[in-house]
Amino acid sequence: MIAEVLTIGDELLRGEIVDSNKAHLSERLLEADVQTHFQTSVLDDPDDIADALRRAVARAEVVLISGGLGPTRDDITIEVLAHTFERKLVLHEPSLEVMRAFFARFGRPMSPANEKQAWFPQGATVLPNPEGTAPGCLLELEACALFCLPGVPRELKRMLDEQVLPRLLARSGQEAGVLRSTLLRSFGVGESTLEDELKELAQEAHLSLGFRTAWPDNFLRPVARGASVAEASARLERLCADIIARLGTLVYGRGEEETMERVVGELLRAQGAMLAVAESCTGGLLGERVSAVPGCSAWFRGGVVAYSDDAKRALLGVPEEVLRRHGAVSEPVARALAQAARERFGATFALSTTGIAGPAGGSDEKPVGTVFVGFASAEGSEARRFWFPFDRQRHRQITVQAALDGLRRRLLGAAALEAGFAAPRAAGRAGGAGGGGQAR
Amino acid sequence: MIAEVLTIGDELLRGEIVDSNKAHLSERLLEADVQTHFQTSVLDDPDDIADALRRAVARAEVVLISGGLGPTRDDITIEVLAHTFERKLVLHEPSLEVMRAFFARFGRPMSPANEKQAWFPQGATVLPNPEGTAPGCLLELEACALFCLPGVPRELKRMLDEQVLPRLLARSGQEAGVLRSTLLRSFGVGESTLEDELKELAQEAHLSLGFRTAWPDNFLRPVARGASVAEASARLERLCADIIARLGTLVYGRGEEETMERVVGELLRAQGAMLAVAESCTGGLLGERVSAVPGCSAWFRGGVVAYSDDAKRALLGVPEEVLRRHGAVSEPVARALAQAARERFGATFALSTTGIAGPAGGSDEKPVGTVFVGFASAEGSEARRFWFPFDRQRHRQITVQAALDGLRRRLLGAAALEAGFAAPRAAGRAGGAGGGGQAR
Repeated sequence: MIAEVLTIGDELLRGEIVDSNKAHLSERLLEADVQTHFQTSVLDDPDDIADALRRAVARAEVVLISGGLGPTRDDITIEVLAHTFERKLVLHEPSLEVMRAFFARFGRPMSPANEKQAWFPQGATVLPNPEGTAPGCLLELEACALFCLPGVPRELKRMLDEQVLPRLLARSGQEAGVLRSTLLRSFGVGESTLEDELKELAQEAHLSLGFRTAWPDNFLRPVARGASVAEASARLERLCADIIARLGTLVYGRGEEETMERVVGELLRAQGAMLAVAESCTGGLLGERVSAVPGCSAWFRGGVVAYSDDAKRALLGVPEEVLRRHGAVSEPVARALAQAARERFGATFALSTTGIAGPAGGSDEKPVGTVFVGFASAEGSEARRFWFPFDRQRHRQITVQAALDGLRRRLLGAAALEAGFAAPRAAGRAGGAGGGGQAR
Repeated sequence: MIAEVLTIGDELLRGEIVDSNKAHLSERLLEADVQTHFQTSVLDDPDDIADALRRAVARAEVVLISGGLGPTRDDITIEVLAHTFERKLVLHEPSLEVMRAFFARFGRPMSPANEKQAWFPQGATVLPNPEGTAPGCLLELEACALFCLPGVPRELKRMLDEQVLPRLLARSGQEAGVLRSTLLRSFGVGESTLEDELKELAQEAHLSLGFRTAWPDNFLRPVARGASVAEASARLERLCADIIARLGTLVYGRGEEETMERVVGELLRAQGAMLAVAESCTGGLLGERVSAVPGCSAWFRGGVVAYSDDAKRALLGVPEEVLRRHGAVSEPVARALAQAARERFGATFALSTTGIAGPAGGSDEKPVGTVFVGFASAEGSEARRFWFPFDRQRHRQITVQAALDGLRRRLLGAAALEAGFAAPRAAGRAGGAGGGGQAR
């Protein structure tokens, strides 16, 4: 099946907004074996929209339209759609009811302009929008299905998952029914290794497995289809279980929300443990990531950014002697930093980072990219050495992730640790170099 | 003039990449009074590309094409362009020479595949690429100018500035000649205030002034045209001087590179001063931003993330009494944090942050969004109160920017300070809420 993605809005054509909806829609369509051949954006202009609609219908079997469903005067997508394909606009009472209830709940009056959002082309299937006031719709023409979706990414994503993709699967003549997918988050091995490790999975027609680089992580997207929600969900869970059986603790989280810092935070909270950090090369990024989690004060005490040797001595008491003999970027200093942070903050565990993020400062023995991650607990301290040959910003990001991942493995217990607390080989290859997910 | 932006590449249509080139091209075209009416993306497929080219030429006067200029087999933009408009491909010797010299300089052999990049449609003007191996070209048809540019953003941006926009100005029947533009970075007042303040500027036909929200900053883009580089540059500098005469120290930097932390770092370095930070609500972001500047160890000592009250007491010696009487989010605590950081790190200046980033933790007296930024020097300490009613992440970002901007004003001297070290009114309105510059 060939798809066209059509996004509508003056703000896109003035370049005020980088339109990430197009990439998201196209990426997810591939899960339903639908290849996007054309992406088009046009102004809020009735003639341009009509023209783009006619052209899309002539060359694609699926058209996903995003934007122009709002209540304002320049939101004309539905009107133009009806006019272009010679349908009357009809009022969809249930949508109007939902909208009224929405405004009532917030104690705000509904503007007359909003009523416009309850009118649809005759014969269209209305697609409810559980995240906002603008419902979408599906207009089925002879050889083409047109889906109108809102431009707000959160609303668009949910409607795509719940209403568009299942219908496309049914339409594509594959096994009709329901689609369920999830996101598995992994850190510590490259995309090609993951693909290789999992190549025997998802062979059945009703399963698929996608990969995406999300620096410094790699994400997996398992997808399952079934005749019912229950069947699709059961298949998805089976596939996830198979993946996790092979990757073990390389999979650290699931879904958009389960970031590394949240996973670590939940583990700390469950164990009643407190964390402190001492950062040199990461300059505050580790503390920032950790403290960005709402409610983190239940498990995060704080940290020190000991960027200079003076600070390492004065704030954390790293002995002059150790700094001089081993250098600031060394295992003993990483251990001393973690121990000192643990003691000074009265924490259960502490993490530390010290490394050469570049561009200058490397040597033969310790080239740019070298970093030591330290860990301290009641049982003592240790540090692991990594080499992350990336630019300054990426070096920091992967160092923070490696530090958190090491802590996660410790919190999970000895078995997870064996699977490689920061095994240099594995972690050094984490993430795909460059690769997808980036703006270009 | 009507423009179409056409981007080419399978990776776009698979959603692996969020295509930011389209937004950039469209935004900059507006400077030359060229409105983008259509943005199109197609696969690396000869028929689809040819079709898109024909359609674009039929409906636009300017077509900007990006992508498909590389040396690999799927880079076919130039071939398809020649074929579609019935031109022979001819070898452009000077480009081949430049390419050979490029590879020789890096001591690498030039692959035969690269030679392809020196062939262009007969009659096309070759556009040199000072940043990479793939030159672009301009093919002038009867009613339309087609510009082919590489897909690599850095290369594309420079060629757009230096080769495309000046030609478009000439073509549009406006004053022919050269275009010069720059970016002025401002923080502390909203976009509408800026527009209002500057509305009398850039009235002449050869000048223009654009605005863009770049949270938490607002960017200005002054543009000047002239018959020569010298004239355009002189006009641009005059316009910049006029802008700065009105906005004063609200403009903190110029160009892509001159970020707030770099500006502050340069001022500190020039004065031989050292900085330390103590962060509560920003959780490490301030240290991270500062230490992301290469070479910052010349002026940055380090910081403490004192997220918990315990940490404020234990690491920085904030008295229990002060914490209890005033609360952690208060002027006395902000001052104590800054003073302690300054002393403990042996720094010239220190900054501190303490606030309620939300979502929970607010009260009537100190609602979510309240933050105190502290400052300490040899002369003593002070703190200013702000209220930034934004989500947790934005709250942190604007707090860090306000802290750095306050320090910048102090380093610039008394006059700059009067213009508002963190004047609550001004800074509270910093940035446009939501607005452009974001992916959506």
